[in-house]
Amino acid sequence: MTKILISGLGLIGSSIARIMQSSHEETFIMGSDPNKENIDFMLEKGFINKKVNFKLAAPKADLIVLAAPVSVINQQIKTLEKIDLKRGVLITDVGSTKVDIMQTAKNLMLKKHCSFMGGHPMAGSHLTGSKAGKITLFNNAYYFLINGNQTEGQTNHFKKLMKFSNVNFLNFNAQQHDQVVSEISHLPHIMAAGLVNMVNDDLSNQDVSLDIVAGGFKSVTRIAKSDPTVWTNISLSNKNLLLQQIDKMCENLNHFKKLLDTNNQDEIFQTFLKAQNSRKSLD
Amino acid sequence: MTKILISGLGLIGSSIARIMQSSHEETFIMGSDPNKENIDFMLEKGFINKKVNFKLAAPKADLIVLAAPVSVINQQIKTLEKIDLKRGVLITDVGSTKVDIMQTAKNLMLKKHCSFMGGHPMAGSHLTGSKAGKITLFNNAYYFLINGNQTEGQTNHFKKLMKFSNVNFLNFNAQQHDQVVSEISHLPHIMAAGLVNMVNDDLSNQDVSLDIVAGGFKSVTRIAKSDPTVWTNISLSNKNLLLQQIDKMCENLNHFKKLLDTNNQDEIFQTFLKAQNSRKSLD
Repeated sequence: MTKILISGLGLIGSSIARIMQSSHEETFIMGSDPNKENIDFMLEKGFINKKVNFKLAAPKADLIVLAAPVSVINQQIKTLEKIDLKRGVLITDVGSTKVDIMQTAKNLMLKKHCSFMGGHPMAGSHLTGSKAGKITLFNNAYYFLINGNQTEGQTNHFKKLMKFSNVNFLNFNAQQHDQVVSEISHLPHIMAAGLVNMVNDDLSNQDVSLDIVAGGFKSVTRIAKSDPTVWTNISLSNKNLLLQQIDKMCENLNHFKKLLDTNNQDEIFQTFLKAQNSRKSLD
Repeated sequence: MTKILISGLGLIGSSIARIMQSSHEETFIMGSDPNKENIDFMLEKGFINKKVNFKLAAPKADLIVLAAPVSVINQQIKTLEKIDLKRGVLITDVGSTKVDIMQTAKNLMLKKHCSFMGGHPMAGSHLTGSKAGKITLFNNAYYFLINGNQTEGQTNHFKKLMKFSNVNFLNFNAQQHDQVVSEISHLPHIMAAGLVNMVNDDLSNQDVSLDIVAGGFKSVTRIAKSDPTVWTNISLSNKNLLLQQIDKMCENLNHFKKLLDTNNQDEIFQTFLKAQNSRKSLD
C-alpha cells in the first residue's frame, strides 16, 4: 500500500490524483488544498481517499506530490525539512521552474532516507481547479524529471503510479529545463498577455470593440486566459532567463522590421515559409 | 439575373462563391483561378457555373469580386481600368489591406457607370484552396466595407447576395482599417512566425526536439501555418503601420522586462489579470 499525499488539487494535482487512483498499484491518496470546493469535489468523486492537513499527513506518506504554485512549493519544501518523515519517502513536485526548487530542496536531500525528485508535466489549460483536471491531461505530453537523490527504484515506482497518464518522461537537468521552458512556455504567455492588453487599449481609444478580432487572434491569445497568480509566480521564479528571452524576441521582431523596411520580399517569404514548415511538423 | 465574376477561388473566394450560389437572388457565377484543381473542384460541386478568363469575362459581369492576393488585386484593378465594363457594374475586393487598394481604384472610379467598394472579411484559416472554403467561413465574423463610389443600392444588393454568410458588415475608412488590422491580425502573424523560428533554432542547437512543446505553444503559433505567399504580400502592403506595431510590441515587452527586473509583483499580476479579463470577454 502506497500512501500518497498530494498537496494542491488544482488542474495538475487533481489530474495526478485521478491517474494514481486508477493505477493498478495499491494506493491510499490523501489530499490537501486551501480551497474547500476542490477538496469536497475530489472526495465526492473518490479521486482522493481522505482530506488531510499537509503538516500532519506528511509523516505518514510514502510519496509526497507538491502540486501548489511555485512559491508555495518552495515554502512546503522548507516545512518538510523540519518534519520527521517516513523512511524511504519520495518527495516530488510539479513546479514550472526547476533551478530554484532544486536549490531549495538541497537541505531536504541531506536528511537521511528522504528523497527528492524534481518534476514538471508540460501540460496545462486556461482552466483551473479540481473540476478542470482529467485523467487524460498529460496524454502524449512530456513530463520532465530532474534527478535529485532519488533511487532508480523510486523513479520506477513513480512512473508505475503514473502509468495511465500516457505521458512521455524525459530527463533534463534543472538549468536546461528552465532555459527551454522560458522559451517554449513562459515567453509565449507574456507575448499573449502583452498583445491582448496592447490591442484592447488601442481599440478602446478608437471606440472599436475588441470582438472584431478573428479566430487567429483568439488562438494566439488563448493562453492569456490562464491564472494570473500562477503566471506572476512563474515569471518571477524564472526571471533571469525570461529577461534574456524577451530580448531575443525583440531582436527577432527588429530583424523582421529591417526586412520590411528594405522590402526584402525573399527573406520575408523565407521567414514565413520556415515557420510554416516547423509549425506544420507539430500536427 | 446577376452575373458575378469571382477572381481567385482560394479559401475566401470559394467561400463567397458558395454563399452567393446559395442566396435567393438569381445568380450566374463565373470563376477564374490560375489553379486548375480549384476550378475543377468548384465546377464539379456546382459552386460556380462557368470557368472563365478574367479579362474576357469582366465586360459581362454585374459584380466583380477580386479575391486574389493583394498584389494581384492591385494589378487586376489596373487591368479593369482599360476594359469596357458593363453599365452599373460593382467591383469589390477582399484584400487584407485597404489604403493601397483604394488608392489604386481611384482611376477605376473615375470611369462612368463603374463602382468600386473595398471589402475585407475578417476570417481566415491556415488552410488554403477551394476545398478549404465553406459557406460558414464568415459565420459571426466581421466584414469591413470601405466606401468607394458605390451607391447604397449596390451595397444593399451585395449584402443580399451575402445573406447566408451570417457575417456582420461594418463600415470603416481605409486608414483606420489598415491600422486596426495591422494590430489585430498582421502583428500576431509576425509574432507567431518569429516565435516558431526562434524556438526551433534554439532547440535544434540543443538537440531537443520541437515536439516537447505543450498545447499553449501550439495554440499561440497555429497561425504560423498560414500561406507564406499571402503573408509576405500582406506584410509588405501594410509595411508602414506594421513597422509601428512592431515597435509598440517591443515597448510593451520591454515594459514587462522592467516589471520583472524590479520584482514588481503587483504590476505583473495586474498585467496578467487585465489580459485574462479582456481575453475571457471574447469567448
